[in-house]
Amino acid sequence: MMPYYVGIDGGGTKTAVELRTRGSAAHSRAVFGPLNCNSDRTAAAKTLTDTLAWLAAQPEGLAGCDGLCIGSAGISNPDAYNFIQDIIRAGGYTGPLQIVGDQVTALAGALGQPVGTVLIAGTGSICYARTADGREARSGGWGHLIDDEGSAYALGRDILRAVVRAADGRAPATALTELVAQRLGAPGVQPVIRFTYAPTTTKKEIAALAPLLDPALQQGDAAAQAIIAHAADELTQMAAAAMQPLGLQTGSMALLGSVLQKNETLRAAVITRLTAQFPTLTFPEPVGDAADGAAVMAENS
Amino acid sequence: MMPYYVGIDGGGTKTAVELRTRGSAAHSRAVFGPLNCNSDRTAAAKTLTDTLAWLAAQPEGLAGCDGLCIGSAGISNPDAYNFIQDIIRAGGYTGPLQIVGDQVTALAGALGQPVGTVLIAGTGSICYARTADGREARSGGWGHLIDDEGSAYALGRDILRAVVRAADGRAPATALTELVAQRLGAPGVQPVIRFTYAPTTTKKEIAALAPLLDPALQQGDAAAQAIIAHAADELTQMAAAAMQPLGLQTGSMALLGSVLQKNETLRAAVITRLTAQFPTLTFPEPVGDAADGAAVMAENS
Repeated sequence: MMPYYVGIDGGGTKTAVELRTRGSAAHSRAVFGPLNCNSDRTAAAKTLTDTLAWLAAQPEGLAGCDGLCIGSAGISNPDAYNFIQDIIRAGGYTGPLQIVGDQVTALAGALGQPVGTVLIAGTGSICYARTADGREARSGGWGHLIDDEGSAYALGRDILRAVVRAADGRAPATALTELVAQRLGAPGVQPVIRFTYAPTTTKKEIAALAPLLDPALQQGDAAAQAIIAHAADELTQMAAAAMQPLGLQTGSMALLGSVLQKNETLRAAVITRLTAQFPTLTFPEPVGDAADGAAVMAENS
Repeated sequence: MMPYYVGIDGGGTKTAVELRTRGSAAHSRAVFGPLNCNSDRTAAAKTLTDTLAWLAAQPEGLAGCDGLCIGSAGISNPDAYNFIQDIIRAGGYTGPLQIVGDQVTALAGALGQPVGTVLIAGTGSICYARTADGREARSGGWGHLIDDEGSAYALGRDILRAVVRAADGRAPATALTELVAQRLGAPGVQPVIRFTYAPTTTKKEIAALAPLLDPALQQGDAAAQAIIAHAADELTQMAAAAMQPLGLQTGSMALLGSVLQKNETLRAAVITRLTAQFPTLTFPEPVGDAADGAAVMAENS
C-alpha cells in the first residue's frame, strides 16, 4: 500500500480534507464541520477527531499518513496552534505536521506552490507573500474596525456611509440610496441606522451589501465609482507592502475571495493599478483551493 | 411668588436641571441621574420623577412652573419622546412642554438663543443648525460605525489604523506606535489588535486614545498631522452641509465637545477652513451650557 498525505482547510463553516496518495494521481476529499479555534473550540475539536477517525479508516490507517498540513484562521494565536497540535498528537498521529494560517494554504492552492503572493478580499481582506526559501510577509487583515480595506465589509460600510452622507447633504444623491432601501424593505435614513446598529446585525450582514455596487455602477453612479476606486487603491497598497520587501513583484499573484472573484470592476481596477506599478507581475487563474494547497505543503514536508 | 421655568439637560451619566425665576436674576441648579431613554429607561424614569419631586418641593410647587424644556439624546425615536412626555404628564405637570434633541439645547446654551449653528465633536460628532423661524438642519452624527467623522472615536480609530499600517509597511513609521504601546502597556501589533477587538473595549475607550495626537503633533508626526487634516476636512464639510441650506453661514457657530474644546490644533484647523469658505461666520465663546439652553427655550415657550 502506498503512503498518503493530507491537506486540511479548516473554515468557519466547514473543513475540507484532501487526501492524496504519494506517487499516483489518486486522491479523495471529505468534508467535516467548522474549524476555528478562536470562535468555537468544541466544534473545532470534533472536526479534528472526525478527521482523524476518517484517516484511521483508510486502508493504510493513520500510520500510513506521512504528511499532514492544516490551514486555519487564527493560528497566529499560540494558544490556538497548541490546541490543534495537542488534539492531533493525542489522536495518535506521529508524522510530519504543519499548522499554518489559511492565507498560506490559499496561496499554495491558487499558485500550485507556497511561493508568490495572494491578495484576498472576502468578508475581510489580507495580502500574504512567501518566497521559495520560506521568508514571508503580510499586510492588512487587522479586522473590520480598523482595517480590512477593500473587503466586502468595508464596501458595505462605505455604501451605508454614502447613503447617510447623501441624506444630510454632505454628498450628492446616489443610486445606492434606492438600492439600500430596496434591500432593507424601507426608504429613508432611519431604517439604515436601525440596520447598522441593531445588535443582530453582524459584520457578514453589512458585507452582504457589497453586491449592490454592481447595479449602481451600471447606472454610472459616482458614489459607487468612488467606493470602488478607494478599495482598489487600498488593495494595491496592501499588495505592494507585502510583495516589495520580498522582491516578489516579478512573480505571480492570486486574487481570491468573494469580492475579488465576483466584482469584475474592482478586480479589473486592482489589476490595472498593480500592472502599472509592477509590469511583470502576473495574475494566473487559481489551479486549486486551500485544501489542495495544504496537500501540496503536506507533500513537501 | 414668581412663576419659574425649567431647563433640563439629560445626559448619559447625569442630568442638569436649571430653574430660573421669570423677571429676576434668581436661578438654581440641581443634578440628578442619567437620562437616556435608548440605553436605560428605568434610570431615565427615576431621573424624571426625582426632577418632578424637586420641582414640587419649590415654594411655588409644580403648578408654579410655566415652562419646561428637556433636551436629551435619542429623541428622534418617537418611542423615547412619548416615554418622557408620559412620565412628565403623569407626574402632574400641565404647563408648556418641549422635548428636543440635546444638540438643540447645546446650540441655545452656547449662543444664548436657539439660532445659529453648533458643531459638536465629542465621543461622537454632529452639526446642527436652526433659524429664528424654527427651520432646522443636521448633518453627521450617524454613529461610530459609518459616521461620526472628526469625533474622538474616529480619531482613536485612525490612530489604531495608523499603527497597524506602519507595522505592516503600508505607511511610514509613526510616533503613534510608541504612544499607543505606552498606553496599552505593551509594544507591538498584537496588543493593539487584542485591545481593539476585546469584547470589553467600548467605543469610549477607543475615543480615549484621541489625546495621544497632541504629543505626536509636538513631534511633527506626519501620520498625526494627516489624521487632524482629515478630521478638519470632515467637520468643515459637515458644518457646510447643515448651514448652507438655511443661509446661516453669515451667523454664529459654537464649537463644542471634548475634541473641539481640547484639541487646539484641530479647532484651529476647522476655524481656518470654515473662515476661508465663509468669511463672515463668527465663532463666539459659549455663553452657557445645554441646561442653560434648555432654560432659554423654556422661557420662550
